[in-house]
Amino acid sequence: MTTDATTTVPVATPGGHYEILIGAGLLADAAAWQGLPPAAQALIVTNTTVAALYAPALQRAIAPHYRHVDLLALPDGETHKDWPTLNLIFDRLLGSGSDRKTVIFALGGGVVGDMAGFAAACYMRGVPFVQVPTTLLAQVDSSVGGKTAINHPLGKNLIGAFYQPQRVICDLATLDSLPDRELSAGLAEVIKYGPIADADFLAWIETHLDALRRRDRSALAHAVQRSCEIKAAVVGADEREQGLRAILNFGHTFGHAIEAGLGFGEWLHGEAVGCGMVLASELSSRLGLMPASFVDRLRGLIERAGLPVRAPALPTARYLELMRLDKKAEAGEIRFVVIEALGRAGVRSAPDALVREVLLAHGAAA
Amino acid sequence: MTTDATTTVPVATPGGHYEILIGAGLLADAAAWQGLPPAAQALIVTNTTVAALYAPALQRAIAPHYRHVDLLALPDGETHKDWPTLNLIFDRLLGSGSDRKTVIFALGGGVVGDMAGFAAACYMRGVPFVQVPTTLLAQVDSSVGGKTAINHPLGKNLIGAFYQPQRVICDLATLDSLPDRELSAGLAEVIKYGPIADADFLAWIETHLDALRRRDRSALAHAVQRSCEIKAAVVGADEREQGLRAILNFGHTFGHAIEAGLGFGEWLHGEAVGCGMVLASELSSRLGLMPASFVDRLRGLIERAGLPVRAPALPTARYLELMRLDKKAEAGEIRFVVIEALGRAGVRSAPDALVREVLLAHGAAA
Repeated sequence: MTTDATTTVPVATPGGHYEILIGAGLLADAAAWQGLPPAAQALIVTNTTVAALYAPALQRAIAPHYRHVDLLALPDGETHKDWPTLNLIFDRLLGSGSDRKTVIFALGGGVVGDMAGFAAACYMRGVPFVQVPTTLLAQVDSSVGGKTAINHPLGKNLIGAFYQPQRVICDLATLDSLPDRELSAGLAEVIKYGPIADADFLAWIETHLDALRRRDRSALAHAVQRSCEIKAAVVGADEREQGLRAILNFGHTFGHAIEAGLGFGEWLHGEAVGCGMVLASELSSRLGLMPASFVDRLRGLIERAGLPVRAPALPTARYLELMRLDKKAEAGEIRFVVIEALGRAGVRSAPDALVREVLLAHGAAA
Repeated sequence: MTTDATTTVPVATPGGHYEILIGAGLLADAAAWQGLPPAAQALIVTNTTVAALYAPALQRAIAPHYRHVDLLALPDGETHKDWPTLNLIFDRLLGSGSDRKTVIFALGGGVVGDMAGFAAACYMRGVPFVQVPTTLLAQVDSSVGGKTAINHPLGKNLIGAFYQPQRVICDLATLDSLPDRELSAGLAEVIKYGPIADADFLAWIETHLDALRRRDRSALAHAVQRSCEIKAAVVGADEREQGLRAILNFGHTFGHAIEAGLGFGEWLHGEAVGCGMVLASELSSRLGLMPASFVDRLRGLIERAGLPVRAPALPTARYLELMRLDKKAEAGEIRFVVIEALGRAGVRSAPDALVREVLLAHGAAA
């Protein structure tokens, strides 16, 4: 049951140094769970779907290290990424007499990781936590870098903290149970790392996309490792998103508007980001930074990944309104991540008229 | 209107470097408000009581630096230090289109500072904030060091963050409007710094207590400055309370139990800490660390400050139960800050039987 090869990616930020472990079978590999902060108690935060699949394995993995291991399964889904659900974590921690050394394990996808991480950041002003991501999206993106948050009725991830985990443990075997639609959503974030940081990786993804979609372990191992390496380098240089880190939001300004415009949960985050990257590459092209052929290339890859490439038919005015509310906007000016060269991204503003053209070219309504 | 002498106390923590400005008339001193992070918008968070007294002056002070200055007056009092009230801040920020550069000004006492600070820590994962404390307690304690929090029904300050302000501006003139009872509550925290860190300061307080109680400006200036210097040195060495910083909680383990046992708001925090210091010095004495005369000396000073020195007649079992729930407890073991020598504190556990004796000697019920 132990993994043949565990890859380790170090992350170094001002807020903490830690390692991402990547391998198949890590839930059953005792070595992966050694050396975490000592505590009397641990709390596993997961959701009802993931609990049935992997909570027993995680309980077995950490039982040797804590006198009491508690389990809390939250309702599943982005619609529950809110204050009342977060409060369930606090209530459980307080109900079980957790102290400021209690370790929180986030077992699940991005929603669980964001909520458990934010609860860890706030409970008694901060307790240790460990990310155990079980979706591709969480393994390559949300569990790395310390962003935690809940949603506010007016927008996604508006209330949160930068708070680094003690460790991230990516068991590739957990991806076997991932629905195809969610695997595709995760591939959106994998694809993202190519154009923003590594042209060779983009070419590798193009070659290995079919292997990734059929969950070939060695292809997944490389995709997760390279994605984490790139993300670790970026957040190591800019933990709190004051500059460089913004490039990780390639496709996200458009993507968040899609999610908010349709109502959270209608499209998966990765689906919205996939389509958002088509729009952002179109913008890069219309700003004269990239050739039109780049838009076609990226759209083709995103489509092959099983992701939507046509924007929802919302009015362009609605897109612009939603993007102005985005966290990345400053004083009402929308900031777009654009590709400046293959493997290099930057942040720009753009005239509303141009953004409207971009949206209209890919499915938005007038 | 400008101050003759502004004292500056630097604070250096891993989470941020900033200055505490101390002087009479700073709200009207343009120099005090220069050089804060630039932003299009600012939000003043205060309470209904303080708003009437000082919000116009603060609005005038910062108007030259922001295109739009918004004002939010929260309901006054510790009972409102909760999630629904915190959410009023988020709603206002979002309603006014605040972005991640918007600066939050906390104008008021500890409750306002804790809530505005925690809102600043969480809004879009962190926006800049400035503490403008208008109570003695906030000037010497809660506005310095980056502790922010809200209460949970099961305990005080259980949900929060370590988040450093950009600047702390202590206008001593605002203390003129402080009710006597609140001035006394602030003196409890001033007195605290003597036994834990500076025997000479303890002697100085004994000599100048009457001057402090009649709000002599130069006595207040020295008390605030020396308190802030000591607190800055402690939090600079231990921002996240992993060791040394715990000594700032002298009197607080007992004090929190008093507050929780009577119901939050019955006694002021400083009153509970005052009485808590009597109990903690009694414990120090019964542990053989300090002579009985020290208990008498400290109790005498606390009484002269206008603070209660007799513990509420709650059963000792209730005190112990409440103290086990305190954030500082670890795996159910209560941690007490004790005085080891005049000007030096440490953290110890103590047998329940001894703690019971301490409580019974100062007013608790059997």
